[in-house]
Amino acid sequence: MRDVAVIGVGMTKFGELWDKQLRDLFVEAAIQAIDDANVDLKDIQALFIGNMSAGLWVEQEHVGPLLADYLGVKGIHTYRTESACASSGVAFRLAFMSVALGLYDIVLVGGAEKMTDVTAPESTHHLACAADREWEAFNGATFPSLFALIARRHMYQYGTTREQLAKVAVKNHKNALYNPKAQFRREITIEDVLESPIVADPLRLLDCSPISDGAATVIICKAEIARKFSDTPVYVIGSGMATDTIALHDRPDITVLYATVKAAKEAYKMARVEPKDIDVAEVHDCFTIAEILAYEDLGFCKKGEGGKLIDEEETEIGGRIPVNPSGGLKAKGHPVGATGVAQIVEIVTQLRGEAGKRQVSNAEIGLTHNIGGTGSSCVVHIFSRSKR
Amino acid sequence: MRDVAVIGVGMTKFGELWDKQLRDLFVEAAIQAIDDANVDLKDIQALFIGNMSAGLWVEQEHVGPLLADYLGVKGIHTYRTESACASSGVAFRLAFMSVALGLYDIVLVGGAEKMTDVTAPESTHHLACAADREWEAFNGATFPSLFALIARRHMYQYGTTREQLAKVAVKNHKNALYNPKAQFRREITIEDVLESPIVADPLRLLDCSPISDGAATVIICKAEIARKFSDTPVYVIGSGMATDTIALHDRPDITVLYATVKAAKEAYKMARVEPKDIDVAEVHDCFTIAEILAYEDLGFCKKGEGGKLIDEEETEIGGRIPVNPSGGLKAKGHPVGATGVAQIVEIVTQLRGEAGKRQVSNAEIGLTHNIGGTGSSCVVHIFSRSKR
Repeated sequence: MRDVAVIGVGMTKFGELWDKQLRDLFVEAAIQAIDDANVDLKDIQALFIGNMSAGLWVEQEHVGPLLADYLGVKGIHTYRTESACASSGVAFRLAFMSVALGLYDIVLVGGAEKMTDVTAPESTHHLACAADREWEAFNGATFPSLFALIARRHMYQYGTTREQLAKVAVKNHKNALYNPKAQFRREITIEDVLESPIVADPLRLLDCSPISDGAATVIICKAEIARKFSDTPVYVIGSGMATDTIALHDRPDITVLYATVKAAKEAYKMARVEPKDIDVAEVHDCFTIAEILAYEDLGFCKKGEGGKLIDEEETEIGGRIPVNPSGGLKAKGHPVGATGVAQIVEIVTQLRGEAGKRQVSNAEIGLTHNIGGTGSSCVVHIFSRSKR
Repeated sequence: MRDVAVIGVGMTKFGELWDKQLRDLFVEAAIQAIDDANVDLKDIQALFIGNMSAGLWVEQEHVGPLLADYLGVKGIHTYRTESACASSGVAFRLAFMSVALGLYDIVLVGGAEKMTDVTAPESTHHLACAADREWEAFNGATFPSLFALIARRHMYQYGTTREQLAKVAVKNHKNALYNPKAQFRREITIEDVLESPIVADPLRLLDCSPISDGAATVIICKAEIARKFSDTPVYVIGSGMATDTIALHDRPDITVLYATVKAAKEAYKMARVEPKDIDVAEVHDCFTIAEILAYEDLGFCKKGEGGKLIDEEETEIGGRIPVNPSGGLKAKGHPVGATGVAQIVEIVTQLRGEAGKRQVSNAEIGLTHNIGGTGSSCVVHIFSRSKR
């Protein structure tokens, strides 16, 4: 396999962007990445696009040709992937493999979702399509309720506390203060979280990531030509992927996301690094409990000790393993199809040392962790400032 | 690139299958392919799944992990692609490349769609999501009307007749008589077509492919191990892909599907064959006019002479270039996400010499042609009984 580098990144602001359509969001992010990478449109040989459900949200499928057309590269090879909230993580993996294995030399990978043109109950319905329709969603289980089950069991099994969950949201809101692209740029307190309305006990409103519009894109190329385009290429050194049962109730232990464990193992092996080598991570905190699970399943701490890790402030910027310096899904926003690539945008920005007031110092190796549903799919990538 | 072979095929009956869900259909087809290929479940390293819009039709996204789970291979790498009616053609291309380039040795590629759980107007809406929502579908343009525009222009520009269009449907219904998996197994006459209700002038009901449920799967592997599993491996010798404007009105000439021309050129070049070398083809006859366009854009005849080709019966089984011996989308059925792989199932069956009464004699090289929307995306593959 050839070495692969990220040479450009782009991202829209995340939020309720009522004046922008899906296509506008994607093109805005793509042009930023193209400018950042100093490539011409004609240099791009293929598009890989992650989108969960434009069919449901904006009555638009055939998302690949649509976005290629509006970017001005009609005719180009275009692949759209869907894996619920991991849609663009999967797109990135395919793009990475296509360059590593020699199918293309330069490709653009993006993710986009436009979620706010419908009511909140409709969005909740659309999101529930990532669960098992017949056994979960049909019977009324939505994602807050499924993650509430996980949280309750984690509290029972490991003594994780309500306050520890709240601290995840507090940390991520604090980080987002310094991210101009984030949806929520205001500090919150533990009390704010504990007093916010209950969504699905024990999860409250401020434990949940929001419904968002947004897009993120990156340009990758074979490493040997990366310095023609960028003074600060960031190398992709590991990629792992896994799936799990679609329904949460089919797992032996719902406090473990087995797909995360498996995907991380693959990525660490390929990158020849261990969890302790990771300097900064963007993990999939769709709910606060999901970030606690990620700490454990990625190996940043032992199983059951995720709550302790947040108590010890080890995942703050400045801690042993800073997590979600961007603000995470919780505060940066979670346009589901864009999230996987948006995590990569943040890690590349961190490894370049361009993250401003949210910069993790001396970040050499970064990790992204993107899940679909209750962890029915997972993609993990590892990045480095230097070639391995 | 390594040589790649198809070693197993599977397909459900196509039709209104009210007692089967999306997951049932996929698993049924997958088990057939697994049995046909003599592989174990544990030999399969990844799934590539094409599905246009389970979100809209059955309120189910996250289609990859769902189908992996129900097939009994949870954990496995799983990729779902969407490119409207070319969704599983794209899945096949990615699967082929992944094996050709060494990412995997044995993978399963499938397509599935469950379209009949909703009303016909709802299905028409969902299909229209493959067009440009803002400029076409929003203003009332559905696919029959868009292909009607193409048909009317083709008649004006090249003198194509109503009867020539009808002959496509008559031929495909005749072929489907001998396909036990086909949705419509009854002969129709030119008069039947011309007297059927108008859908969008000049297209009538019997010019249109039906709404269908169904799934199709194939198993591919690196060619060097193919004979361990199959006495009749069929080799993938060409793959081409292209996109075009999402909206029909943005094309310079609506009687040409430029994406077909481009994808075919790539596939012919890779396979080192010319149109005259193709012994049998499955083309995307979503409407009768689309088969006429395919004749021309794939190079089976000159531009504008598609009507003449059907008049001369050259695309009948026994003609110079038999097209759609399976019955095509028109008579075999068109569960949109399954169609691309279903075409491959038919070509592999033909090249193996196992097509029974619809067998094209001495078929050595076959082609599949799968489009999305009005040709906003296209995938062409070429297969051979012998390695190239």
